[in-house]
Amino acid sequence: MIHFQPLGRKVEARKETPLLDLAREAGVQIESICGYAGKCGKCKVVITSGALNLSKATESERDLIPEKDRRAGMRLACQTYIKSFGKIVVEVPEGSRRGHHRLLAAGVEPKVKLSPALKKVVLRLPPATLKDLRADDDRLLEVLFKKAHLKSSISPGVHGRIPEALRKQDWVTTVTLYRNWEVIQVEPGDTSRNLFGVAVDIGTTKVVAYLIDLFTGDIAATESMPNPQIPYGEDLMSRISYTIKERDGAGRLQYAIVDGINTLVTRLCTAKGISRDDVLEMMVVGNTAMHHLFFGIPAQHVAAAPYAPAVRTSITVSPSHIGLNIYPFGKVSSLPNVAGFVGADAVADLISSGLYNDNKIGMMIDIGTNTEIIAGSKRKLLSCSCASGPAFEGAHIKYGMRASTGAIERVWIDPSTLDVNLRTVDDAPARGICGSGIVDAVSELFKAGVLEPSGKMMASENNRIRRGKEGTAEFVLATGSDTATGEDITITQHDIQEIQLAKAAIFTGVSILMKRLRIKPSELTRVYAAGAFGTYVDASSAIHIGMYPEVPVDRISFIGNAAGSGARMCLRSVEKRELADELSRKVEYVELAAEKEFQKEFAQAMFLPHRDLSRFPNHKKRTSKYHWS
Amino acid sequence: MIHFQPLGRKVEARKETPLLDLAREAGVQIESICGYAGKCGKCKVVITSGALNLSKATESERDLIPEKDRRAGMRLACQTYIKSFGKIVVEVPEGSRRGHHRLLAAGVEPKVKLSPALKKVVLRLPPATLKDLRADDDRLLEVLFKKAHLKSSISPGVHGRIPEALRKQDWVTTVTLYRNWEVIQVEPGDTSRNLFGVAVDIGTTKVVAYLIDLFTGDIAATESMPNPQIPYGEDLMSRISYTIKERDGAGRLQYAIVDGINTLVTRLCTAKGISRDDVLEMMVVGNTAMHHLFFGIPAQHVAAAPYAPAVRTSITVSPSHIGLNIYPFGKVSSLPNVAGFVGADAVADLISSGLYNDNKIGMMIDIGTNTEIIAGSKRKLLSCSCASGPAFEGAHIKYGMRASTGAIERVWIDPSTLDVNLRTVDDAPARGICGSGIVDAVSELFKAGVLEPSGKMMASENNRIRRGKEGTAEFVLATGSDTATGEDITITQHDIQEIQLAKAAIFTGVSILMKRLRIKPSELTRVYAAGAFGTYVDASSAIHIGMYPEVPVDRISFIGNAAGSGARMCLRSVEKRELADELSRKVEYVELAAEKEFQKEFAQAMFLPHRDLSRFPNHKKRTSKYHWS
Ligand code: FES
Ligand code: FES
Repeated sequence: MIHFQPLGRKVEARKETPLLDLAREAGVQIESICGYAGKCGKCKVVITSGALNLSKATESERDLIPEKDRRAGMRLACQTYIKSFGKIVVEVPEGSRRGHHRLLAAGVEPKVKLSPALKKVVLRLPPATLKDLRADDDRLLEVLFKKAHLKSSISPGVHGRIPEALRKQDWVTTVTLYRNWEVIQVEPGDTSRNLFGVAVDIGTTKVVAYLIDLFTGDIAATESMPNPQIPYGEDLMSRISYTIKERDGAGRLQYAIVDGINTLVTRLCTAKGISRDDVLEMMVVGNTAMHHLFFGIPAQHVAAAPYAPAVRTSITVSPSHIGLNIYPFGKVSSLPNVAGFVGADAVADLISSGLYNDNKIGMMIDIGTNTEIIAGSKRKLLSCSCASGPAFEGAHIKYGMRASTGAIERVWIDPSTLDVNLRTVDDAPARGICGSGIVDAVSELFKAGVLEPSGKMMASENNRIRRGKEGTAEFVLATGSDTATGEDITITQHDIQEIQLAKAAIFTGVSILMKRLRIKPSELTRVYAAGAFGTYVDASSAIHIGMYPEVPVDRISFIGNAAGSGARMCLRSVEKRELADELSRKVEYVELAAEKEFQKEFAQAMFLPHRDLSRFPNHKKRTSKYHWS
Repeated sequence: MIHFQPLGRKVEARKETPLLDLAREAGVQIESICGYAGKCGKCKVVITSGALNLSKATESERDLIPEKDRRAGMRLACQTYIKSFGKIVVEVPEGSRRGHHRLLAAGVEPKVKLSPALKKVVLRLPPATLKDLRADDDRLLEVLFKKAHLKSSISPGVHGRIPEALRKQDWVTTVTLYRNWEVIQVEPGDTSRNLFGVAVDIGTTKVVAYLIDLFTGDIAATESMPNPQIPYGEDLMSRISYTIKERDGAGRLQYAIVDGINTLVTRLCTAKGISRDDVLEMMVVGNTAMHHLFFGIPAQHVAAAPYAPAVRTSITVSPSHIGLNIYPFGKVSSLPNVAGFVGADAVADLISSGLYNDNKIGMMIDIGTNTEIIAGSKRKLLSCSCASGPAFEGAHIKYGMRASTGAIERVWIDPSTLDVNLRTVDDAPARGICGSGIVDAVSELFKAGVLEPSGKMMASENNRIRRGKEGTAEFVLATGSDTATGEDITITQHDIQEIQLAKAAIFTGVSILMKRLRIKPSELTRVYAAGAFGTYVDASSAIHIGMYPEVPVDRISFIGNAAGSGARMCLRSVEKRELADELSRKVEYVELAAEKEFQKEFAQAMFLPHRDLSRFPNHKKRTSKYHWS
């Protein structure tokens, strides 16, 4: 019997069958790009028990797995065959798991003690009589005080609901308290098990909403949609300039996002079979610009030096204030921002990662059009934002596309032949290439010696390399006969430069924060890769091109949509909200543009992996021994 | 030279001219109904200096002015002639002043120390730079804390106004604080002198709004209109039943009053030349039903035993919550209620009267369709509400009408001849009779012996008394030749019964509260007559018919629209609001319907002035010596 961990799947062993096949039978998707060639190194697993029942390590394995890791039991699943029966336990590292990003919306879910801002208390009141003439509000608050020792006041607007709520179920009523001091709802009878909130992560390109059952703490439903502000501008800057140039532009952008979230709330409620009025609270995270646009706060100053946000502190407004269709006297809150380009989403990332509580220094990287980086530990936290641009979303890349059906998401290139193996989203015929595919491609081309450290593509006899229509070199990833469009899909010299610009922007932030903390990459005990792209992208490729700091791959944790996860945690726990407020003050913001070494750092980071190889001491070891030229 | 006090008007004396004429020349309007006959006793004045320059007291004066008052210098202005030149100082008592109700909307205005809930602070901020990247909100709150030592938070919605407010006038900004802890407004530059609030008294029939300059404390403008809910029901009960019977009836009533107040606010702002956005706070008073309807709180339970109001405590909501067009992030507050029929207006009356602070026992009476009475002193306060009905507003009275042009408002009847002298509003030809006129008429008819104590009109040869179309007796107040309509205006037996019912309802409340306090009428050191009717009605007439407790007339203070005055005081002073909250808890409510002596008291009070004359020991002295029969 073979056990696959940490998923806990089991399968009967079959002799002379590779582990990769048995894993598939067990429903465990392991990466494999080179097609059992033992060349791409993506199918790494760790045998934690029963290694003696398996075939010996092949030459490929000795090439691709460092000695230290091999001693720890690391194998290539495509190269490892069952030799004898017996219990085998196989650990599948996060990075080898294929399709783990399918779970992205939910992300990792650190446990929190359930202590929401909302609390329901069931009360039994003495009825009003000519001998007990107390007003309804006095009656309610007096019994609430007696039962729960809470001195609360009734939220404006809720007053109108009191008379019926008290009398409809014979003076049994449920009050909902917000933070123990404000009665925001009064309902007839006992409704204590019906308590819902929605957490929303407003990304620049995608909006994800989670319905949380606050009685159990569970995620009751998840819904997402592209950010409805996209028609007004693909990226933050163009949306902000829309608010400046167009009359009521900010109003239109606010309406678009609020309307979109209303749609998501309706879908969530339909999925769970509850009413929108059952949603009492919403917790919203997003970058500072998304945050400002959502709340109707002018965002233009975020876009120009000195990039001061209008609002850092956490906000709580009433749903009607921004037109949200949830319970009208409920609450809509945001987490606090840190700075103009380090928003509430980064604070949520930080909370979800746990970095704020680490004793040793770590780093959280959330890659997007703007990449937020937070580095440090319990004692000190630094943050910065890098203008990494939209290349990883496929923009400015000739055949770039989003990570949807047919997008090339994994690339492996045989260094000796330049043969290409690809994986596409949904295994559909290739239609283009998405961010993780481009990073893989650049990394593989660099490994194979096709690219110089400057990024220049070498001329070659190999017909994969050719002069494109633009007159510059390009590399053919897939020929028309294999693609959905019938057109060749190539990576151009220009594409490579876009990726160099993007990764240089990120590494400049990484570098400056490490310098401020006076540490070397090897001293980073953990790197948390947050967000969709951080989860899709291959960590070794990212290190190989010099985007991530050079740490052993097992120190990289994929924390998925950590912003969404942080928002859910804060919805479930007021302590986490207080933590967020504390962190937002504690995290020091480093304005990269104001750092004097910025230009130099950026120029050096344009190289693959970096002009200063002392930053990537293991680079040589990782490059392939094969060189086609 | 003759000085008229307390108005401070002067006029040159002219020999052999009655004081009444000289007063008119000086612009001092003194009551006179009998036309210089020295019979109506309405023209009483007090000579405080120069009495020797005047004619001797006439027989009429000796008849109509009690000895004690005569010794204090009281004269009838129509009977007093200038005999010699010299300084004469004439005090015109409130009750003799004609047309003093023209000032009613403003009411009396006890001084309060200006300490509004709103406060403006001008701040000079350090500009944002790359070296000082603080968010706008952090920057603002930090400087506010340094300058004013206030730890405040920014009201949701105001955030959006911060960036411009800070930058438009070069980082000089004015913040408006609500109760020192909430920033509700941020404006560019120094706007500290521009601070306005509106006080509103929502009466069942009339709505009055006052624009208060909270920088100076002055009333900047006053506007009023009939309550726009009148088309949905003349009185409270019919409006409440409209909310029960009609779909969205409550919504329509709320819309009507809010829309009306919006109109008043627009008029106030136009009058003062400010914008509606300059009005930051509104303080509203009204009876409990008006209060509930205004805030959108179901009022139906106020209308049925045990008459529990939904809300007693004071409420503060945002203007948008109820659709008020003032500064959108301002505040709309009400004073607290006491009980279902003792509302925020009675609390305002109480504050304006000062009764809560009296060492000796007094009584505040605010007559309306429901009459609120509060009695007691500093130590203890009791309240009740009497269903006095709309008779004093002219309803159910054959020729009844509101106190508008042509309404008979003063009546004097010669007991020997039954000749009638009248005064009408605006001195226009009579069109009907208003509340104060009816009370006068009943009192005069009773004094003249036309009415028995039971209220029955005696048959007579005098052609003023006749059998009306209804077959019952009626008294002709004005014949067709003198009226605007050409029709006779009469007081019918039925009219008299309506007045008896109304005054009995009031006196029952007066009686029960006095019993609870264990006092006799003579122990009341002060009676505060509040509201329009309380100001118009002649106090002696009201005592004579047994509506007011029998106290010397000089113990009666007319406090005008005390509800409006109390609302203005609370707008100007947070201490007064806290006082209101304290009083609303302190004032004990007596539910008359639950009192076992209620029926008996009511039946006895139906008599003129009362079945039990020990309650009116001076009644005999006050009745005329003339009897026509
Ligand atoms: S699939 Fe195992 S190394 Fe490529
Ligand atoms: S006017 Fe003086 S008593 Fe009538």
